[in-house]
Amino acid sequence: MGNIIVGQSGGPTSAINASLYGVIKKGYESGQFEHVYGMINGIEGLINDTIMDLESTYKDSNFDFLKTTPSSYLGSCRFKLPEDLDDKIYQVIFSQFNKYNIVGFYYIGGNDSMDTVSKLSKYATKNNIEGITFIGVPKTVDNDLVNTDHTPGFGSAAKYVATSVREISMDASVYSTIKSLTIVEIMGRHAGWLTAASALARNNKIKNPYYIYLPEVDFDVEKFIADIQNALNQVNNIIVCISEGIHDKDGKFITEYIASSNVDNFGHKYLDGTASVLEQLVKEKLGIKTRSIALSIPQRASSRNLSLTDIDESIKAGIKAVEFGLENKNAVMVAFDRTNEYEISFVAVDVNEICNKEKKVPREWINDEGNDVSNEVVNYIKPLIQGCVEIVEEDGLPKFLYR
Amino acid sequence: MGNIIVGQSGGPTSAINASLYGVIKKGYESGQFEHVYGMINGIEGLINDTIMDLESTYKDSNFDFLKTTPSSYLGSCRFKLPEDLDDKIYQVIFSQFNKYNIVGFYYIGGNDSMDTVSKLSKYATKNNIEGITFIGVPKTVDNDLVNTDHTPGFGSAAKYVATSVREISMDASVYSTIKSLTIVEIMGRHAGWLTAASALARNNKIKNPYYIYLPEVDFDVEKFIADIQNALNQVNNIIVCISEGIHDKDGKFITEYIASSNVDNFGHKYLDGTASVLEQLVKEKLGIKTRSIALSIPQRASSRNLSLTDIDESIKAGIKAVEFGLENKNAVMVAFDRTNEYEISFVAVDVNEICNKEKKVPREWINDEGNDVSNEVVNYIKPLIQGCVEIVEEDGLPKFLYR
Repeated sequence: MGNIIVGQSGGPTSAINASLYGVIKKGYESGQFEHVYGMINGIEGLINDTIMDLESTYKDSNFDFLKTTPSSYLGSCRFKLPEDLDDKIYQVIFSQFNKYNIVGFYYIGGNDSMDTVSKLSKYATKNNIEGITFIGVPKTVDNDLVNTDHTPGFGSAAKYVATSVREISMDASVYSTIKSLTIVEIMGRHAGWLTAASALARNNKIKNPYYIYLPEVDFDVEKFIADIQNALNQVNNIIVCISEGIHDKDGKFITEYIASSNVDNFGHKYLDGTASVLEQLVKEKLGIKTRSIALSIPQRASSRNLSLTDIDESIKAGIKAVEFGLENKNAVMVAFDRTNEYEISFVAVDVNEICNKEKKVPREWINDEGNDVSNEVVNYIKPLIQGCVEIVEEDGLPKFLYR
Repeated sequence: MGNIIVGQSGGPTSAINASLYGVIKKGYESGQFEHVYGMINGIEGLINDTIMDLESTYKDSNFDFLKTTPSSYLGSCRFKLPEDLDDKIYQVIFSQFNKYNIVGFYYIGGNDSMDTVSKLSKYATKNNIEGITFIGVPKTVDNDLVNTDHTPGFGSAAKYVATSVREISMDASVYSTIKSLTIVEIMGRHAGWLTAASALARNNKIKNPYYIYLPEVDFDVEKFIADIQNALNQVNNIIVCISEGIHDKDGKFITEYIASSNVDNFGHKYLDGTASVLEQLVKEKLGIKTRSIALSIPQRASSRNLSLTDIDESIKAGIKAVEFGLENKNAVMVAFDRTNEYEISFVAVDVNEICNKEKKVPREWINDEGNDVSNEVVNYIKPLIQGCVEIVEEDGLPKFLYR
């Protein structure tokens, strides 16, 4: 019997360990493999021989808590394999596969990680190496992978964003007689999916976020100021949600607008957050009470806002990856296919078609003015945030599984 | 039968509506009052006659959701009554009491709100007005009220801080081979209680936060830089928690350190966040990967991190306030008394002794170096964050009660 090896790569999400749980569980339960190995810090761990046998994890009485543990249990890396398949790093990696008798390589990550899966499978093909399947498991809060309906981790992050924006909206409206603007900065450098999820904060009582700005549309500061003025003529407490990656028509990030002349006591320039830059611009131009909030790391690390749908699907994606391996599917990524009534089936898509591409929010799902999203976005995201995951506590804090 | 009136004042917390729930529930269930009225936007609502009858709230089938609704259901204000009790505003207020046949005034808030309770009761005494009891219900995430063991709202905020710092610590450690610093900014301008709660994030696997800096101790930037260098000689991934209000020995806030030369495109100076300022200083001095996160509004508005202990006590504080009123206690605040085994009893303390004072973290609960807290703090806070509150969802988001 051969062994399989699994790794995690890129930025963590609050669901990436649920997929790892699925791979480990199916790996052992299938009875087809002697060992499920874990690479510590992704492909770097394979190269540096920092590898752990995951049997102890599988047999740990707290194994189930891995499903709701944020961060990457195995650690992560940002390591891009060289384009040149003759680079000797590939020999190092494949000698490791040999040493550990690896028949399946599973990599949980975003499009950079799919690039790793793609290159390793290409190297194997080129060198007539058989007997190893290379399979990608998607993961990213950005939801920007192509050829899959959505990605594990996005639903929980979207639930965090929608919940937090609703709560911030309520908090910001307590002094209802004072005009105020709150700018909420949401993750997403190139794709605005997560920022679009803020639209789910609205209901028949909460009209905020009043505006939503995605990086898919060029941002115009003058238009933004006019938007705010217009909104404050209608209502007193405005929440605006922006993607961290918004930029003007020349491609200049809004976060660079103030940095040019922003120097500290030591004469160095620096970049501020996007929401913080807009906060300053609004304060100067309109003189109103303005506050900026960057939702930051909790978006991808909050265990208490996990979407049950997301966690279930993330586990299944890990399980399905191992099943695909047992079916000798190679160079594929586990992708999600959706029916209209929201049922998800899993399909194997060519990993070479995934890597180095980005799926953005379609222009037609953004309004003409570029300051809001359409109902299509809400209908697309809503099923992904459904359901609560019960969090077991220890001493008042969530119980997690640690390596 | 007379009526009672209740209001909320100051910054909201995620437990302030639980106390309101207690006042409304006990107010009606006691059978001693015809109406429980609510002031919209605190004392301003009383002055401006924007008052609601809370019977519709009490009879709403969703009334129970008020217990876990963040923000101030009745709205809030920051209105300080004049020192001069002969100011005519007092006549306006007392004519309102007359108009609505008020026998009990309940005000949920922090020390500024207790100042309102104090002044109204003094005015009544001075003018021989009888038949109205003035009672304060404490509320503040800052936990800085004197003569009470702790304050409603603090436990849930502390739970949010400890949980988030633990999750951020785990997220920040995935690239374990790269040295990095994450600076987490926590609410608290003068009192460091909430920042001290970050110490609860530690367990036998999580050693972060590595350092904790409270506003009770003068902050020294050079010492801070030396602390970071020292820490990074020991471990790679450091989390440091700071109160937003840290300042140097001359009383200058750290957030003012960069502002002096920080100008935008329009030549205006502005203040950055405390963590952001320290981030820039560390980057320049040490050149290491540094990131700043301000936990911001979710600290006081997150419904999913509510402490069951806090919510239960907050409700009871509201109920107890009405009981104190029925016992003709006047000019008092509901205070918490703790036994060693953590049982809480409620006592009526003189509201005049509460207002305009601040309870800070005792110096002996901070280490000599001023960069950490003692076990006493952990033991003091731990009981306050115990227990989860079940959050009912609607369309994937927490269900709240809206006015």
